[in-house]
Order: sequence, then C-alpha cells, then structure tokens
Amino acid sequence: MIRVAVIGGSGYTGGELLRLLAMHNKVEVTYITSREYAGKPISIIHPNLRGFYNINFSQFSWDKIGEKAEAVFLALPHKVSVDYVPKLLEMGLQVVDLSADFRLKNPELYKLWYEFDHPYPDLLKKAVYGIPEIHYEELKGAKLIASPGCNSTATILAAAPLVYSNILDNYRLISDVKVGSSEGGAKPSEGSHHPERQNAIRPYEAEGHRHAAEVEQELQYISKKEVKISLVPHAVSTIRGALASVHGWLISDDLNEIEFWKKIIEFYRGRKFVRVIRGNIHPYPDPKYVIGSNFVDIGFAVEKRVGRITMFSAIDNLMKGAAGQAVQAFNVSRGFEEDEGLRIPPLRPA
Amino acid sequence: MIRVAVIGGSGYTGGELLRLLAMHNKVEVTYITSREYAGKPISIIHPNLRGFYNINFSQFSWDKIGEKAEAVFLALPHKVSVDYVPKLLEMGLQVVDLSADFRLKNPELYKLWYEFDHPYPDLLKKAVYGIPEIHYEELKGAKLIASPGCNSTATILAAAPLVYSNILDNYRLISDVKVGSSEGGAKPSEGSHHPERQNAIRPYEAEGHRHAAEVEQELQYISKKEVKISLVPHAVSTIRGALASVHGWLISDDLNEIEFWKKIIEFYRGRKFVRVIRGNIHPYPDPKYVIGSNFVDIGFAVEKRVGRITMFSAIDNLMKGAAGQAVQAFNVSRGFEEDEGLRIPPLRPA
Amino acid sequence: MIRVAVIGGSGYTGGELLRLLAMHNKVEVTYITSREYAGKPISIIHPNLRGFYNINFSQFSWDKIGEKAEAVFLALPHKVSVDYVPKLLEMGLQVVDLSADFRLKNPELYKLWYEFDHPYPDLLKKAVYGIPEIHYEELKGAKLIASPGCNSTATILAAAPLVYSNILDNYRLISDVKVGSSEGGAKPSEGSHHPERQNAIRPYEAEGHRHAAEVEQELQYISKKEVKISLVPHAVSTIRGALASVHGWLISDDLNEIEFWKKIIEFYRGRKFVRVIRGNIHPYPDPKYVIGSNFVDIGFAVEKRVGRITMFSAIDNLMKGAAGQAVQAFNVSRGFEEDEGLRIPPLRPA
Amino acid sequence: MIRVAVIGGSGYTGGELLRLLAMHNKVEVTYITSREYAGKPISIIHPNLRGFYNINFSQFSWDKIGEKAEAVFLALPHKVSVDYVPKLLEMGLQVVDLSADFRLKNPELYKLWYEFDHPYPDLLKKAVYGIPEIHYEELKGAKLIASPGCNSTATILAAAPLVYSNILDNYRLISDVKVGSSEGGAKPSEGSHHPERQNAIRPYEAEGHRHAAEVEQELQYISKKEVKISLVPHAVSTIRGALASVHGWLISDDLNEIEFWKKIIEFYRGRKFVRVIRGNIHPYPDPKYVIGSNFVDIGFAVEKRVGRITMFSAIDNLMKGAAGQAVQAFNVSRGFEEDEGLRIPPLRPA
Repeated sequence: MIRVAVIGGSGYTGGELLRLLAMHNKVEVTYITSREYAGKPISIIHPNLRGFYNINFSQFSWDKIGEKAEAVFLALPHKVSVDYVPKLLEMGLQVVDLSADFRLKNPELYKLWYEFDHPYPDLLKKAVYGIPEIHYEELKGAKLIASPGCNSTATILAAAPLVYSNILDNYRLISDVKVGSSEGGAKPSEGSHHPERQNAIRPYEAEGHRHAAEVEQELQYISKKEVKISLVPHAVSTIRGALASVHGWLISDDLNEIEFWKKIIEFYRGRKFVRVIRGNIHPYPDPKYVIGSNFVDIGFAVEKRVGRITMFSAIDNLMKGAAGQAVQAFNVSRGFEEDEGLRIPPLRPA
Repeated sequence: MIRVAVIGGSGYTGGELLRLLAMHNKVEVTYITSREYAGKPISIIHPNLRGFYNINFSQFSWDKIGEKAEAVFLALPHKVSVDYVPKLLEMGLQVVDLSADFRLKNPELYKLWYEFDHPYPDLLKKAVYGIPEIHYEELKGAKLIASPGCNSTATILAAAPLVYSNILDNYRLISDVKVGSSEGGAKPSEGSHHPERQNAIRPYEAEGHRHAAEVEQELQYISKKEVKISLVPHAVSTIRGALASVHGWLISDDLNEIEFWKKIIEFYRGRKFVRVIRGNIHPYPDPKYVIGSNFVDIGFAVEKRVGRITMFSAIDNLMKGAAGQAVQAFNVSRGFEEDEGLRIPPLRPA
Repeated sequence: MIRVAVIGGSGYTGGELLRLLAMHNKVEVTYITSREYAGKPISIIHPNLRGFYNINFSQFSWDKIGEKAEAVFLALPHKVSVDYVPKLLEMGLQVVDLSADFRLKNPELYKLWYEFDHPYPDLLKKAVYGIPEIHYEELKGAKLIASPGCNSTATILAAAPLVYSNILDNYRLISDVKVGSSEGGAKPSEGSHHPERQNAIRPYEAEGHRHAAEVEQELQYISKKEVKISLVPHAVSTIRGALASVHGWLISDDLNEIEFWKKIIEFYRGRKFVRVIRGNIHPYPDPKYVIGSNFVDIGFAVEKRVGRITMFSAIDNLMKGAAGQAVQAFNVSRGFEEDEGLRIPPLRPA
Repeated sequence: MIRVAVIGGSGYTGGELLRLLAMHNKVEVTYITSREYAGKPISIIHPNLRGFYNINFSQFSWDKIGEKAEAVFLALPHKVSVDYVPKLLEMGLQVVDLSADFRLKNPELYKLWYEFDHPYPDLLKKAVYGIPEIHYEELKGAKLIASPGCNSTATILAAAPLVYSNILDNYRLISDVKVGSSEGGAKPSEGSHHPERQNAIRPYEAEGHRHAAEVEQELQYISKKEVKISLVPHAVSTIRGALASVHGWLISDDLNEIEFWKKIIEFYRGRKFVRVIRGNIHPYPDPKYVIGSNFVDIGFAVEKRVGRITMFSAIDNLMKGAAGQAVQAFNVSRGFEEDEGLRIPPLRPA
C-alpha cells in the first residue's frame, strides 16, 4: 500500500480524488489538507463520503507531509502549486499536480498566456503531461505528473487521431466545448448561483482561452507540425460532463468515412479508457453516457459538401477531465493496472 | 379584429401561437384544428391555457376555414403544409406557414435536400421568407409567409451582419448550435424520454443538416456572394432556448473589435427585437435571458491570434425561433405594430 | 398614470416587479433603488430587461421618494422594511410591502416567531394581508398592503376552502411544500451553488418554519376556529414554482369527492387567478403549468380508507408567490382591473 | 463464481443490475434476456456499458436458463414475474424477483390492491421481503427474495425506527415521497417527455397508492401493531433519487430530540448501508448525496409545538430502491459480504 496525501481536499477535484482513492486497492490516503476545514471531518464538506474516511482535514505541514506520504496529489489553484512542487520532489515524494503550473514545456508560454514568469523552467522539462493515451511510456516512473483539465483533455483526445494523420488544415481548428457547472469548482459566485446557472447556454472566455497553449503543445507533439487551435467553451446546464466538438477542414476530399474511422481506431488501439462511437441509436458521443467513469467516448461527423469534419469527445469533467485521469496517470507511473480504482461503469441514467 | 385560424394546434408551436394570439389585440382566434384532439378543449393538451379559450379543437374542414378565418397559421409537419397552402391562397386567405415547404426559392434545392419534387415552384417565388430583420419591406402585404425555425433563424441572424460586410471566408462557416428539448416537438420518443434527455450534450444531424439550404440562401441574399455553411446542432439540457455559435475566419486582420461592434449595430439599427450584447457581467448572449420573449440577443468573440471570429445569437426557440417570429412577420404584413402581442419582457430567472 | 417606486430593485422580487410593471398600463416606474447598484443601468443586473427601462438604479433618498412616487413597492429584507413604512405612509404614499414586517396582526407573534419587538403595533392593524382571494374588500383603498411570500400563499390557498368548511381536524395539518431555487433570492451561497442545488430534494427549516404564524392567522380568520399547521418546505430542482401539498384528516367520512370539489369551486367562485383542477391527463396541479403567470391551480386527493385528504396548490413563487400577487393586490386597492399587467398566460413548455 | 441471469435486461432496473454485477467479484453474468432486443449487443440499449459485456441479449428460454444460471434476477413487470417464479424455483434456481408479485404475505391483499387472484399463495409464505435492514436473518439462504421498489423502501426505512418505538399515532402516517424520473422506467410516454417532465412538481397516484399495502405489512411486522399509512408520491425534476418525508404525530410530548436520535441509531446499529444524518451544513438527508450508491440516509425533524415529527429517508431509487438492494439481499442470502459489488461511494456533485 502506497501512502498518499491529497493537498487541497475540499474542492470538487479533491473530493473526487478522495472518492476514487477510497476504491483504490494499492493506496491508503493518510493525509488530507484544507486551509479552511482543518480539524473537521471530511464528510462536513463531502457529505457523499460519510463513512469512508476516519481521518479529518489537516493544515498542510512540511513536517507531516514527508512522514505521512510517499505520493502527493495537489488539487490546488494555479500559481499555488508551483510553490509546493519543487520541495516535495526534493523530499523524494512523487507529485501529481492537477494545476496548470507544470503543463507547458516552454516557459515563454507562461509569460504569454499566464503573465507569469515561471520560476522553475528546469522542472518543466521533467514534468510529464498526464494524458496516458499520449504519454504512456514517459509516464512510467514519472516523478512529476502535470495532469490536465477537462477542456484540454477533451480537445486533445478528439483532435489527436486526425491531427496525427495530417489530413486537416492545421491552422483552422476550433474546439467548441460544452461543459457542466462542476467545471467551475466548489466556490459559489454570481454566475454559479442556481437560478442563473441552470438553463444557461453561455459562452465564456471565448477570446483567447489560455488552455489553447497546452492543447497546441500536445497537438504539435502528436503531428510534428505547427497547429493553431481556438477554444470556445460554453457553460451548459448539467453538473458533470464535457463535450468537445472540434471543427476542422479537410485538406483533401479523397478520404471516406471508413478511413476516418480506421484512423481513429488505429490511433487508440489498446487504450483502456477510449471508446470509439459510431452507431445507430447513439451515433455520436454524449457525456451523459460516461458520467461517473474515466472513459472518453470519441466520434466524428463529416460533411463532404463543404469539407468540414467535426471530431467529438465526451468525458466526465471531474473524472477523465480531472481526478480520474490523475489516478490513471499515477497508476501508469507506478506500474499498477491502468484502471485500478477506476473500474466503475458509467452511471445511467444520470 | 382579424379572424385567424391555427391549423395544427396541439403541438408546441401551435400551443405557443395560441398563447401569443391570446395576448394580441388585433386578432381573434376563431378556429383551432387538431386531428387527434378534435372535439376536446384546448386545455386538455395545453394545461397552461386553461381559461383562455372557450372554443374546442376542430377537425380541419375546407368549408369551415373559409367562413371562419381571414388569416391562417399553419403549424403542420413538412410536406403536409404544401397540400394546404395553394387552396388557402386561392380562397383569398393569408397564410403564415411554419413548415419548411415554402422557404426555399429554388425548387432544385428541395430535390437535393428534401428528396422532394416541389409541386408548386411558382408559389416559391411568391412566398416571403419570414425574418422581418431581413425581409421587412417584402413582408408588407405578403400573402404567403414562409416562417423559419430556430436553427435557421439563430444562424442567419448571427451571421448576417458580418457576411454582409464581406470580411469572412465565405466558404468556411460553421454554426455550432445548442438547443433545448422543445425544439423536437411534442411527440415523445426514446431520445426525448426525460431520463435520457436531461443532462444530455448530444450532437445530432451533424452531417449535412438540411436547414443549411435556407441559411445559405439567405446569407447569399444578404452578401450577394456565394456562401457555404455547415450546421452542427447539439441537444442540450434546457427546455427552451437556442444559442448559435457561428464560427468564421477573418479574411484580413485589419479590423478591430469596435469596428465589428459598429457593423453589427449598424446592420440592426431600428430593429425592435434585436439586442446587441457586449458587457462586463454578461459579455455574450445567453438564451436564458430571452426566454418567453421574441428577442434575439447578438454578440461576438474575436481571437485575432488565429483570425477566428465567433458570432453568437440567443433566442427562445419557440418564440423568435417559431411562433413569436411568425406573429411578428404577420404583424409587419398587416401594418400592425411589429411587437403587437409580443410586448413581454423575457422571464428571469427561468 | 400612477408614478411608482420600487425600493430594493436588484433582487429577484424587485426584478419581477419591474418586469410586470413594464407591462402595466396604469403605472409608470419613476424610481428604482439599489444600495449596491446605484448609478448603474437596470440591465446590468437584470439582463432580461435590457431595453425596457431608461432610468438607472438610484440610492434611496427621502427627498426623492416623495417627489417621484405616489405608490411604493418595498422589496426589502425582513426587519428592514419596518424602518421605511411608517414615514412613507406619513408622507401620504401608498405602500406595498413584500417583507414579513406587517403581515401579523398580533405583535406578540413577532416576539415568538421572529424574536422581534415590533415597534409599530398600531400599524399592524391598518395593514391588509395581501391575498385578494381572501381580503378583496379590505384591499380596496388600502394604504398599507402586507404582501405574503410563496410558502404562505400556496399553503393558505390550498387549505382555505376546506378549513372554511370545517371538515378537517384543525390541529393536524401539514403543508409539505416543494419549491424552486429562486425562492432563496439572488444572493449566492453554498447551498445555492449550481452543482449543489441542482438535483437536490432537500428539506429545510423543517422544525418550526416561522411562516406558520401568518398561515395560522389567515386560516383562523377563514374558519373562525383555532388552527394549527406545520410547514415542511423542500428545495427541489426547478428555478420557479412551488407546490404545497397540505395533508389533513377528515373528521367525518360522510363527504364524497364531488362535495369536496363543489366546496372548492364555491369558495373561489369569481376569483380571476384561481383555476380548480380535476382531470384525466393532468389530474393534479403542477407549478410547471402556471410558470410566468399569476395563477394558482388548486386540486385535491382523497384516500377515504384512512381518512386523509391532500389539498394541492401550484404557483409561480415569484408571481403569485411574490411580485405578481403584490401587483394584483395593488390593482384591487386602486380599483384597476384585477389582472392589469398580469394578463400573460403561463409559459409552456418551460 | 456463481452464474447468474438477468431476465428483462433492457429496462433501467435491468441495466442497473448489469452495471452492478459487472463490479461483483463473486458472480458471472451468463445470460441476459430481452424480448425486444434479443440478438443485439447490450450496449445498443445501455450505452454506458459499452465494453463491459461480450454477450448479447437473448430470448428467454426454459432450456437455456437451467443450463446457464444458478441464480436469476427477474426485472419484469408486475403480473409477469408470477409466471416465471414457480418453475424457476422447481428447477432449483434461486430467484430475486424485483416485481411486486411476491411481496405481500396475505393473498387477500392482492385482490384488494391489485385486483389479482394470486395463483401461488403458498409461495407468498416462502418469499422473503428483501430489505436486509429488516429481514437480515430470514434472507440467509433464502430461495425466493421479493425485492421492493423505491417508494416502499424509502418509506419503510424512514418510518421503521419510530414505529418500532411505538411513539406515534399509528393510524395517521403520511409518506410524502418526491422521486426522480427514472422511477417510471425506460418506456417513453407523454408524461416522461422531457419538455413536460423537466421542472415538474407533480403529484401522482395520490389516492390509494398500492404500495401502501406492503409498507403497512412491513411496519406492522416491525411494530407488532396495526399501522395505517398513506403514500403521496410526487414526480420531481431529477433523474435519480427519492426522498420520503414520513409525517407522523407523537402520542406523547415527553421525548426530546436526543431520544429520537438514539432510537434511530439503535435501530440501525451495525447496518452497513444506513447513515443517520444530523448536522449543521447538511441537517437533513438529501438523495443528491447518495446518488450512485446503495446508501440510505436517515434523518428527522420535530415540531413539538404541534406534536409533529417528520422522518426523512434519501435513496437512489435505482440502487437502494431497486437493483442495489436486490444485490445486497442476494449477497446476504449467499453469505457474501453484504456490500460485495456495492462498495462505490456516492457520486458528488451529480
């Protein structure tokens, strides 16, 4: 049993990590921190977990962390993680960081997109971007995993197979994402107030979403060419779930549907959490049918008349888009079964 | 008072027409037909209208229609309206047809998109496409109004100002539409069953949606150039509301935000039901804030880095996307105040 | 045109008043106050009202109010209204107060239920409890209207006809209310955060809800006997709508269904906003079918085997349960048509 | 590994059984029947289960069932199960029947409540009512388990501790249940059509709900006295989840809150799936926090002023209210860990 800590355990990503780690047979959660709820039971803020944890939230302490844990999941805000990671690594702990602080390889991009002078450019090289479907081999034994969020994960996994095949105009990709309210985290705001948020179909951060930086980095890694993509997220009226509709333009009209299908199947062959969808009753992915699970369902639609292809990916934003993927990457890094703690079929109807 | 009939009064569009006409000071609804509910009170199928109508549903009769009404709203399925319209016109009745049967000018397009040999190509020329923001003058005195649906209306009104300005790549437009469940009509199906439909984020008819035909016709009318557009609708988890996110590519990077803004304002100057949105708390349109009203809220987002512009339009799919717009066009055709029967502010929160 | 002010115009009740008064032909809204948004346009906080008001929010001023308005709607929190009402009345203004501050006749009850020593017991006698279905005659010419909220209104209107008939055990009434999220107002909180509030079925204030005081006062007024009732509200997953299921025990088993029906019909005869429901497809009231309107739908269910009767009432909590009823009572007080500004059929589907 | 069959595998209860049995370490699902989908893959109708089953739906066959399975879960409609059970038992198979056909001990009650002359009164005696919290010992080795549904389970588990304590007026109990749409099953209907069902707060079967029969049977078993209870279910706007608010009247006012609390704790001591709730942030049970799990959260509210107590229970209607409880009872019958296949914490937020 590996002793693990969850730092920042009171948010939704922290709560989801705790839910998953409670089902994980190879780890024991020994330390859960929260600035606000230190000293209080886990269930006070995560009522679903009543009965699953007999430890309370703690204040983070550098003394305790080394003694309590071998691996650390950081569910902290951006620009906060960066202050924890170097020292945790120095102490010999493995770190799975769910913030954006170590996702980009190029420190210049932090300046450009985050107005942030990254203080540890060397660590950026060591970090492995935590999508096992793309970086499986590098994740083995990784000490620092930079685990991506839902907009990025959904967009990358939708676009990857076709970008890899070099059949698209690489400069004109748009990821029109639709995402549920839990993506915004556990802090109430005007925009998340139920009467305002329910029934919304609301574009947000639609003019230069900064996750485009990591998406372009990964798609360039896959295609070995320059890629430009624009993210246009929309808040829709579910709690969980994200659908990325990645619209692209074919550079040739030679290919037919079956060939697109084959390219996708081939790209994801052997990947446990990818399901390629093409059917009668349910022709395209819908996040509704992956809720509560770590699956990503992938599909596509082609309109040859205009040369447009749309690649769809559906995920549960707190699972494959956050905590589930972090556990999956951790499993790969440790040589565990990739789906340890993640063998739950999606909940339906839900 | 003009005596009007609603043919096909039991569906959602029919019900919405009845709701609006009950508030209309210039008309009296004298005849409401339904094959299935003939002889029964209106409120049996529209429980919201209890107390508003003291006539029952009737079977349609050619004898009655001429005697009862001067104007007829047809809320019938596609390819059914076509059998009613010519004779109603011959009888001297004005027709507002909410089906697709008279929306396209070119009969060839019916073959291509609907696999339908249109029997009355001459009438196609007489019909006025019922978006008053585009065809205001032609609607005056119009005898046959072809009133469009929500995907088309939302897409056309979002794209119109910029297509008119000739600043986009006309061959690479995508309308990624998100729409609520009432768009599918009042007939239950597997896909509309509440446990399957609620929380869905589900692409549908994503490979050549036939409403692209009328959208292209109208955008070409506006821009005087060829336009190609692809519609990719998504079912999301509200009852009412449609948001069109029309993604386009700028052909030059000379223009700035203020100029886009001006072009939109200019294009819609004096149009009662268009509200152009650009703000702090609510920067983009959200159908949530037009529910129950005939407004279309218009906005946009630009990402100059990649030359992408997204034009947003938000409507209530049963109002500006169906019954409301039909009443608005009817008002224009009759010389009434454009907003007669439609002076209801949107419901909020809802 | 009567010049009216809305004091506390930025909340949901204030916003709904503004929406209704914009459709009201006998009033002009000349003054809208908000401490937080003074100087800003109405639409900044009520995006639905964009285009309907060309005045901004003001800071409340005793100088201005007298000059600007003849009647004042107070949409202020409890224990705040009480500081405005006496002086407004002295200034000769009519007051419609939507707080609880003047609803109870007996000042002792404010001590008991609100821990509040009411400073103006004399004014309590002058105030008219603002349910026109109960106090129609007293409302005529009323200078101070104490307009009730949704739990009270729904419960009173459900229970009234049978309590009036003296056929129930008056000491064992329970109003199990189900209500949407807008009832909690416009301020975000942990409990109203969308991911926590959506899909909730959550009892609250279930051990001595203080609105029982006014409900008992009104039911005793109607029945001329002592009545005890317990309110058990539940937050459910809509934005608008409240259903009260008032469970009671019959004191005799002589009566049959038709007689209950007759008693209800008789009690509400001539009341414009009451619809009594008993049908096949929709046998009981559902707030879904009154949304956006001022109607209350009333129905009942009897189980003679155990002597239980449940009386149901369905309202839109912001309309008949708040702003709509306030306007209705104001109309009666002024001798206007009771439904002036309120002639909107419910929105469906919504 | 025990080989099990699921008969009637295409509905929601069948699908949920398949989801749970896929995680169960002691069983193998060898046979899944569906009249409508025989020959087709499981995922065609349960898209969430794509990748979990490599067998297809079969037509039920008496030859196959004996050969394929040792235990059978029947997810069939009422009055259909009754034709399968006797022969399956004769063949030596264990039967977990999720219909109402073997829940009542007294055949007269089938006449009264179901207008049904039960053909196998002897089998009624052998069947064990499948709530392990009530019938744990009898379930051990049980050959026929009559597994109850969500209204009954929620009501019984809420009422049991206090009915057991004999502190209530046994003749005046009301269970006001609020339940999500999945309770109605997978067949679309007018009432389940999304635009009609979403946002509903709709009483149904409110005048003599027949599940009162089994609830009274069980509460009499627990209290050893006659009990009368009335069920008043309400359809609310979630997919999963049921809350029973069981309203009762105390026969004495001697008891205080702590004593109620103790009685409940005592009654459920050692029961793995019961969580008794009494807290600050979440004072009462909410089905939202048991979704996806087999837990029942129990709580209560007292209003001593009027002698009213409300007992709340919150369940996931497809889990503790159907498939989860069936698996739990099966586990007990087989001597497995009670929570085998059911060790999933509730999903949150969801």
